[in-house]
Amino acid sequence: MKWPWLSSNIWRWLGTHFINMHSTHLFSDASHTSHTNIVFYLINPGSEKAHFLLPSFSDSQPRQLIDTNPRQEVRVCMSLLGDRKKYQRRARCILTFYNSRTMNAEEKFELITKGLQEVLNPQILKEVLEKNERPVKIYWGTAPTGKPHCGYFVPMIKLAHFLKAGCEVKVLIADLHAYLDNMKAPLEVVRHRAKYYEYVVKTILKSINVPIDKLKFVVGSDYQLKAEYTMDLFRLSNSVSQNDAKRAGADVVKQVANPLLSGLIYPLMQALDEQHLDVDVQFGGVDQRKIFVLAEENLPSMGYKKRAHLMNPMVPGLGQGGKMSASDPNSKIDVTEEPKVVRKKIMSAFCAPGNVEQNGLLSFLENIVQPIQELKSGQDGVFDFFVDRPEKYGGPIRYSSFEQLKADFAEEKLSPVDLKEGVAEKINELLAPIREAYASDAEFQACSTNGYAVQAPKDKKKPKKVKNKGTFYPGNQASAEEVSEKLQSTVL
Amino acid sequence: MKWPWLSSNIWRWLGTHFINMHSTHLFSDASHTSHTNIVFYLINPGSEKAHFLLPSFSDSQPRQLIDTNPRQEVRVCMSLLGDRKKYQRRARCILTFYNSRTMNAEEKFELITKGLQEVLNPQILKEVLEKNERPVKIYWGTAPTGKPHCGYFVPMIKLAHFLKAGCEVKVLIADLHAYLDNMKAPLEVVRHRAKYYEYVVKTILKSINVPIDKLKFVVGSDYQLKAEYTMDLFRLSNSVSQNDAKRAGADVVKQVANPLLSGLIYPLMQALDEQHLDVDVQFGGVDQRKIFVLAEENLPSMGYKKRAHLMNPMVPGLGQGGKMSASDPNSKIDVTEEPKVVRKKIMSAFCAPGNVEQNGLLSFLENIVQPIQELKSGQDGVFDFFVDRPEKYGGPIRYSSFEQLKADFAEEKLSPVDLKEGVAEKINELLAPIREAYASDAEFQACSTNGYAVQAPKDKKKPKKVKNKGTFYPGNQASAEEVSEKLQSTVL
Repeated sequence: MKWPWLSSNIWRWLGTHFINMHSTHLFSDASHTSHTNIVFYLINPGSEKAHFLLPSFSDSQPRQLIDTNPRQEVRVCMSLLGDRKKYQRRARCILTFYNSRTMNAEEKFELITKGLQEVLNPQILKEVLEKNERPVKIYWGTAPTGKPHCGYFVPMIKLAHFLKAGCEVKVLIADLHAYLDNMKAPLEVVRHRAKYYEYVVKTILKSINVPIDKLKFVVGSDYQLKAEYTMDLFRLSNSVSQNDAKRAGADVVKQVANPLLSGLIYPLMQALDEQHLDVDVQFGGVDQRKIFVLAEENLPSMGYKKRAHLMNPMVPGLGQGGKMSASDPNSKIDVTEEPKVVRKKIMSAFCAPGNVEQNGLLSFLENIVQPIQELKSGQDGVFDFFVDRPEKYGGPIRYSSFEQLKADFAEEKLSPVDLKEGVAEKINELLAPIREAYASDAEFQACSTNGYAVQAPKDKKKPKKVKNKGTFYPGNQASAEEVSEKLQSTVL
Repeated sequence: MKWPWLSSNIWRWLGTHFINMHSTHLFSDASHTSHTNIVFYLINPGSEKAHFLLPSFSDSQPRQLIDTNPRQEVRVCMSLLGDRKKYQRRARCILTFYNSRTMNAEEKFELITKGLQEVLNPQILKEVLEKNERPVKIYWGTAPTGKPHCGYFVPMIKLAHFLKAGCEVKVLIADLHAYLDNMKAPLEVVRHRAKYYEYVVKTILKSINVPIDKLKFVVGSDYQLKAEYTMDLFRLSNSVSQNDAKRAGADVVKQVANPLLSGLIYPLMQALDEQHLDVDVQFGGVDQRKIFVLAEENLPSMGYKKRAHLMNPMVPGLGQGGKMSASDPNSKIDVTEEPKVVRKKIMSAFCAPGNVEQNGLLSFLENIVQPIQELKSGQDGVFDFFVDRPEKYGGPIRYSSFEQLKADFAEEKLSPVDLKEGVAEKINELLAPIREAYASDAEFQACSTNGYAVQAPKDKKKPKKVKNKGTFYPGNQASAEEVSEKLQSTVL
């Protein structure tokens, strides 16, 4: 990202130190800024603020900060003082730079594979990292069905790792799958949902301070209906047996008496997506494993390269045994949910005293809260959990170790209601920037209104339908009901 | 078909009497023919030749001929005497008109369904015929794999009936299927094969005096890779169960241990073809029945209309039990086969004295020779079969009834060798115009050379492969080997 209205020298200098840049506010009209003074403030955690004015720009101070903190984020605040009134009005711009270039191949690999359950063909990933000629390209797919719930944070954390390690991340918004799986919503509505999903992914990643300039969104209908893709689908269907296609989808398609043919086609599409999205790696939940293996086994015979596969563990859900009724609206927590509603839903979650095995709240803290705290602080092992416990039950308590919290809960030193209070607080903390972004962005709201408003009343009245299909995109399921169930069974 | 360079009056007159027109030679450069004299000769079987010169053109004589012979063909010979030398050189043009407009809806229905084993939804066909606002549109599919053999005459006879009844016939040359089923031949080669198939179909139909102006050829890749088609395929795969797709293909896909996924997709494509080829009717062998039912059951729920389905009986083949080894090149008779080779192959065919049940030769006479004689003469029940039998075995014998021939063979009054001699003669008679067309058309030959020349030696050396796939287009099978086997098992 190089903006032509800025001195090319600065950007060359920055380019040698930072790969990823992220601007929360872009200047929309860059053509009239030639007489602009630019002020940089370089802020680093724990360090003094550095101040630069364009003419006296010096690189000694920031370089030092970066070099001594290779895995730290560096934030540059820039004041743009235009010579016209309108530029002064919107003069402040915050640029956040990440010095991923200072990470070596090994460190990047470590971050990319952090917390994964399994990696297939790590050498493919390593090779691209070691050559260091271009970013690693990773694809993750999601079908824009129901509104994303808190479980969506799980894949987002990995996307954050990929982006911080300098990867190019392609999010496939599988609109065709979403449309096909719930043909009650016309394609037009699905397009709004796709846009809504894009907003949610971007907003979550921004909220955890991740650079998103290498984050790309592709909607399935942009390429999955093209002749080359269809031809490849025909070719692949002519070399994959019905049994192999069935096996590939076994962990993601509900095994019902009379499954649909589409359930055999989707795994093949997911394999072809790797080629047509031009990536090195596909990421997904470990439930995608058989599809990933299908891709590895079949792409080479089509003349395409084999990809690496990164698999997240399946995170247990809120209810007993990780299950929760999808038809119960109380069990879903939207990423834009109101704080009061969040608290009410968490309070009604299953959480037995001393039971740390079937405990969606602890799972949420371990798998979402801690990784996000690590991401935000840039330090591994960081954990901060505070419960404003009434004095009569022991008074306020703060944990800086998840293991300690878990041990206390197991020994019933911490009660379910107190854990719930703390978790509700944490969720609201996580959702606050998303709610804020939603409230301040009319387009974001329009996507929600156009994508879901009409459906909402119908969804509630609709009798529970037989589930006999599912997409193969991690973090989501076939219909609005199913997506929520999957998310629930994943995390919340 | 209205050529602008001819007096519009003539064509208006002809248009009121004839629907189908066919010209064996089109004038390629029609823009310089304004000073042309046109001579029409109207020839009708058993009648005197009528002669018309353009200025003195009168409609009384031909009208009379047509009206008195409503099901007869009327042949108009036209001499085009141009005012420049080059037009005189190619001055003669034969136009053949068929007075299908004089057939009523009932007669057309009778001809369209003649000899079929089963008709599904005849009312759909009847309705279009009775409204009489446009021609009935019929589709028949064929995959351009191996070279067409004599069995190809079976569907051609029905195509001839459709065309004579004024139908618009769309022949789908399923090049994608052919390519996918034998990916050793690149798509480029398959295109030549597709063109070769088109030549063969046209030539056979011309050879039995059928108007082909309403005969259209569509290659699958022209529309089966388009976005709307792919979208429909996804939609359909999302409403058809795996079991239903499997059942639909059960009679056309070989039931092997590990069938390919494509075997489940093809039946759906064949259903969608009806919509995307915009037809009223699909025609095929009765082995397509389950696919036809799948189409009838599923198109309406996609918002598409249900089609009628016409099914030819399966015609027994040459060998015992209608079977014959596809790997034996002696058992295939190409439509361009040399007379000597035809005779040699027929002489080695299975034909036991007195056995009329397992007798591919009698089957050929009944199912191909007789219908073609009826088509050519325009009279039902016509049969003419001559054996130039040596005097010592009873001397030359002529049959004008197939039943009589069959009875004589059953009673061993006619020996296998004499039957074979007669059949070889008949086949050579049928193939003569095709061989002639092939010999006189460099492009026809080029299609053969480019489509098959390279493959030929490989085919012979290739070990017999496991057959685990098949297309769903009547009259053809998956690979070159399979197509011949299917044709053999159908007729010859």
